[in-house]
Amino acid sequence: MGIEPVDIDPKPEQLTYTFGGGQPLARVKPGVPLRLYTEDCFGGRIRTPDDLPSKVVNFPYVNPVTGPFYVEGAEPGDTLALHFASITPARDWASAATLPHFGALTSTSHTATLQDPLPERVWIYDVNREAGTVTYRAANSDFTVDLPLDPMHGTVGVAPAHGEVRSTIVPDAHGGNMDSPLLRAGVTVYLGVNVDGAMFAIGDGHCRQGAGELTGTAVEAAMRTVVIPEVIKGHATPWPRFESDTALMSTGSTRPLEDAFRISQHDLVGWVGALTDLDTMDAYQLLSQAGQAPVANVCDPNYTMVAAVDKRYLPKATAYEGVHAHLRDTARTAGLTSD
Amino acid sequence: MGIEPVDIDPKPEQLTYTFGGGQPLARVKPGVPLRLYTEDCFGGRIRTPDDLPSKVVNFPYVNPVTGPFYVEGAEPGDTLALHFASITPARDWASAATLPHFGALTSTSHTATLQDPLPERVWIYDVNREAGTVTYRAANSDFTVDLPLDPMHGTVGVAPAHGEVRSTIVPDAHGGNMDSPLLRAGVTVYLGVNVDGAMFAIGDGHCRQGAGELTGTAVEAAMRTVVIPEVIKGHATPWPRFESDTALMSTGSTRPLEDAFRISQHDLVGWVGALTDLDTMDAYQLLSQAGQAPVANVCDPNYTMVAAVDKRYLPKATAYEGVHAHLRDTARTAGLTSD
Amino acid sequence: MGIEPVDIDPKPEQLTYTFGGGQPLARVKPGVPLRLYTEDCFGGRIRTPDDLPSKVVNFPYVNPVTGPFYVEGAEPGDTLALHFASITPARDWASAATLPHFGALTSTSHTATLQDPLPERVWIYDVNREAGTVTYRAANSDFTVDLPLDPMHGTVGVAPAHGEVRSTIVPDAHGGNMDSPLLRAGVTVYLGVNVDGAMFAIGDGHCRQGAGELTGTAVEAAMRTVVIPEVIKGHATPWPRFESDTALMSTGSTRPLEDAFRISQHDLVGWVGALTDLDTMDAYQLLSQAGQAPVANVCDPNYTMVAAVDKRYLPKATAYEGVHAHLRDTARTAGLTSD
Amino acid sequence: MGIEPVDIDPKPEQLTYTFGGGQPLARVKPGVPLRLYTEDCFGGRIRTPDDLPSKVVNFPYVNPVTGPFYVEGAEPGDTLALHFASITPARDWASAATLPHFGALTSTSHTATLQDPLPERVWIYDVNREAGTVTYRAANSDFTVDLPLDPMHGTVGVAPAHGEVRSTIVPDAHGGNMDSPLLRAGVTVYLGVNVDGAMFAIGDGHCRQGAGELTGTAVEAAMRTVVIPEVIKGHATPWPRFESDTALMSTGSTRPLEDAFRISQHDLVGWVGALTDLDTMDAYQLLSQAGQAPVANVCDPNYTMVAAVDKRYLPKATAYEGVHAHLRDTARTAGLTSD
Repeated sequence: MGIEPVDIDPKPEQLTYTFGGGQPLARVKPGVPLRLYTEDCFGGRIRTPDDLPSKVVNFPYVNPVTGPFYVEGAEPGDTLALHFASITPARDWASAATLPHFGALTSTSHTATLQDPLPERVWIYDVNREAGTVTYRAANSDFTVDLPLDPMHGTVGVAPAHGEVRSTIVPDAHGGNMDSPLLRAGVTVYLGVNVDGAMFAIGDGHCRQGAGELTGTAVEAAMRTVVIPEVIKGHATPWPRFESDTALMSTGSTRPLEDAFRISQHDLVGWVGALTDLDTMDAYQLLSQAGQAPVANVCDPNYTMVAAVDKRYLPKATAYEGVHAHLRDTARTAGLTSD
Repeated sequence: MGIEPVDIDPKPEQLTYTFGGGQPLARVKPGVPLRLYTEDCFGGRIRTPDDLPSKVVNFPYVNPVTGPFYVEGAEPGDTLALHFASITPARDWASAATLPHFGALTSTSHTATLQDPLPERVWIYDVNREAGTVTYRAANSDFTVDLPLDPMHGTVGVAPAHGEVRSTIVPDAHGGNMDSPLLRAGVTVYLGVNVDGAMFAIGDGHCRQGAGELTGTAVEAAMRTVVIPEVIKGHATPWPRFESDTALMSTGSTRPLEDAFRISQHDLVGWVGALTDLDTMDAYQLLSQAGQAPVANVCDPNYTMVAAVDKRYLPKATAYEGVHAHLRDTARTAGLTSD
Repeated sequence: MGIEPVDIDPKPEQLTYTFGGGQPLARVKPGVPLRLYTEDCFGGRIRTPDDLPSKVVNFPYVNPVTGPFYVEGAEPGDTLALHFASITPARDWASAATLPHFGALTSTSHTATLQDPLPERVWIYDVNREAGTVTYRAANSDFTVDLPLDPMHGTVGVAPAHGEVRSTIVPDAHGGNMDSPLLRAGVTVYLGVNVDGAMFAIGDGHCRQGAGELTGTAVEAAMRTVVIPEVIKGHATPWPRFESDTALMSTGSTRPLEDAFRISQHDLVGWVGALTDLDTMDAYQLLSQAGQAPVANVCDPNYTMVAAVDKRYLPKATAYEGVHAHLRDTARTAGLTSD
Repeated sequence: MGIEPVDIDPKPEQLTYTFGGGQPLARVKPGVPLRLYTEDCFGGRIRTPDDLPSKVVNFPYVNPVTGPFYVEGAEPGDTLALHFASITPARDWASAATLPHFGALTSTSHTATLQDPLPERVWIYDVNREAGTVTYRAANSDFTVDLPLDPMHGTVGVAPAHGEVRSTIVPDAHGGNMDSPLLRAGVTVYLGVNVDGAMFAIGDGHCRQGAGELTGTAVEAAMRTVVIPEVIKGHATPWPRFESDTALMSTGSTRPLEDAFRISQHDLVGWVGALTDLDTMDAYQLLSQAGQAPVANVCDPNYTMVAAVDKRYLPKATAYEGVHAHLRDTARTAGLTSD
């Protein structure tokens, strides 16, 4: 019963590498689920330890996204809600790598030093959907360990404001490559709409990811993902927000990392204030004691921080007219959930 | 049975305001538990909403610590282990405040702008040890909410290296005002010893704290704390580390926030490598997928980040000769634990 | 005698607000001077102290540029040289302002705090081309002072790489709103070409500017500017560079400011090494003692630093096949210089 | 005629390595010139290209200072003025080096990466006082070049506030290792007094230095320096300031670099406002167009920026009761100047 998702399975040449600027892959209706295939950040080209990124990846054709989608009725000033009903690895393997002068514990093109890059290396993970694990194997010893499967999307966004077009590698106010492990199934993402149709796109699936995404890559995987778009009319959202069953979350993406922290916490103070009868200073105080600050990425062109608060501490707050609970119910009723 | 703790209950005039430079409050023996009283960061002077910090606090006499303690046998190049057996609020109230140009969401003396400060305001919390809660009350509305009691110490450290003396407000390689919510009962802190006797001190109890300590204050409280010191001879520790039953944690304290992140993650990569048969790149990869990065403070003179990894992913690793498990057992056997 | 410049006097509706993405305003030939009119960053709308930006400026339609220009023969991998023969204020007045939450000594949208913005205020400057001065007049006292006229362009750039389109407010690897006072008449700017025709544009004239552009605005003015484009084939330029008769300069634009510093100095070390027989460490050492680091902006979406070295210290170095000296001669011979 | 300077020529074992905490080397009277010998930052141990820092320097015994001096009459809340009458290299050679993981274009202990350090290398410079040059010689080619001699002190400070003791490597509100090329002969330094006697010390002479001190070392030299102390009673100075015949300068030392910039510019806005009839916004505007921002160091534990404004633009301003002009005259009259 329920709503049958629309299948979207783009050909490789249909994948896109920017937010903004392109033609829609499809027009979609609010409330109608989409079942998307998304390719991994390497375009599926890293399959063995010998597939070094510098050999097989064709920069800047990295981090492809599926989209953009024109959402009917979405206009500048609205908010696009994207409810992730399920995120499922499409293959039984995934990959990770170090790339020259990219990552959190190396100098980079922007934190520029005169040092040589770290070695380039590839790791291939086994993905066991039944067991709910991914298997890490050391390249240089016999060490292996199973880690919990915890699928997420690193990249979700809309067309940027002011006519900008941004590489899918970049996270910013339009979303993009935020690389937050919290963007998992069961979560609704809120994005401010900047252009007619919003033009959202999704990619960069991760079987799991540590905080900060140290090496610049997570457990990178193609995904089959069910997402339900909805439009909240006349409600602007300055920076991407997430909502789960238990938490409200704001994001900030910039450098230095404290400014990403400030943006996200500033947004959450304002959001909590707007949802409660707390003034700014009282909301600031409450989050000072009850707020969380999960690190997303410290490796991308902008770093991303999340500010989060448990809904238990805000008993009467209902965000965005309750769209999260509504879409969650829709997904469950339609049998589309995986979490 | 077990070891009877030594009680340390300093008079107000015995409290100190620096790490390094002073005479020991007491000489203590490794393995012998101490039951300390620590005053709150305001010196206990903020008791009502009218006790604004600028009126009742006598800067720079803030953030007093109990100590320093000379630990017999501790020498430069060793590591001091401090096992926190229990941390218990000493009163049934606690306080928090905003201070002019101090905190994470305001300009400050160092992130200097020409703007006026935010309003100064005080919040008094009820502390219910039996219920395990602290009660937040909004200053400007009827909103109240109970938050879980989760006691911790913001400030733990030793005398700094190179003859330096640092204000207790500052976190750095010697520990100090790290303000991490993870420094709770059941945790062992490792600090590199820089001077004979290590000269550790503890203060700044928090009934709980959000990530980043937004307003620059947590739920500030006097504490009764049982701590067991131990010395690991000939084992240097460059930055403070924590160990719990389930996790290994490294810290970094500096600015900007990404450098605090880098220090902590860099230290954890090295630590994991030293405890396993992983080379540097393999340890880097494992933490890229399995590491956490809990934010401690984004308001103090240095910001503090923690890097953490679950011990489940490092099955054979034993840190510091197993001193954590040993002290944990000691505390349990002696009936000194509160967690 | 010499080459007659092509006059480019765009209508207001022809001004553009992005780098990348638009149609060329004109196709131009290498070596042929252009005499451009550029509007000020406020679109000429701030003419009196009552013209507060929030009232008269229509965001995001700020910082218009004249262009883009398709330079014949310019292809990806080449470098576009733009020699500024003259930069002359077009009016006898100029303007400056403070804008809410924009500038170096205020919290901003990204260095987000909960504080109120600074007051919005406008200053109108007299521009005296004959005397070579601009007159500052305090808004709130009788203080006035003449400052030297030192015209420059804040914004010069090409279409970005990777299909991106960026607001003209943003400085980055494509140039853009670098806001360096060193970009004055007599200087040649080198920009890496990312798309066929390079698609350069110029705007944001300043009668003068202090280091960092504290308030986020300089002495903003419409300009008449003569620029000569040239193409250096097969020579890539990763970040914008400047050359004057006396100095070689590299730029870097990002956050935090030390990374902008690192990018610019790293580029200059590499450039100096490539122009001399110094290895990397020897070039690093020479710049450690002889290099300069003029601050451009500390207020825009990316901060910009310049790294500079006096040509006297590099006696045999000739950059980009001597194109600066050649264009300088061309401009002088044609009577197009103003410096 | 005039005042005969007091000679201070400390033995190696009298050199100190901290600001704060020690006994005075001498008590001195305001207005009486001192002729100091200062050792170089390496303790004079690097004399040939084979004297690699890791071999001959005994960390943390680096960056020795001559002092501290107890200035009679200086009390907390006063300002100590130190007029540098002359700074003269004491030897005909000077040294520079790269040190592992120290410098602006390398990862460091705090900007921690997993990369190997850059090579360690030493450069010995010829110092020709008569010609006014230092001679750079490349280590790995025949390249040599004469650079202008421009002597300065990297390290000048007083005992810190709040009982702190800081390594001489650190610049902060007490001064210390600011490493600004502007601290040359003819300049007066203003330092806030934190303890009775101020306890100032001076060291780290540089024959010259580039902006940022890229490699972490300048042209390091022992110096003979004449300095005249004076006390301005009841006038606090929050951050070190400099005054030359032509400019007023404020400093800021912290990380990230934009916060050092903000501190210095914020202080200069306030200083200019206090010396003129400009309100805060008018002073902000004036410096936005007329201010400079010379980079001092981007390699030390804190980065240092200077904010400067030409006195021509502040015709009626007299700082600190005219003490700079007075001490400058005193030095000239006594024949103590070298600039």
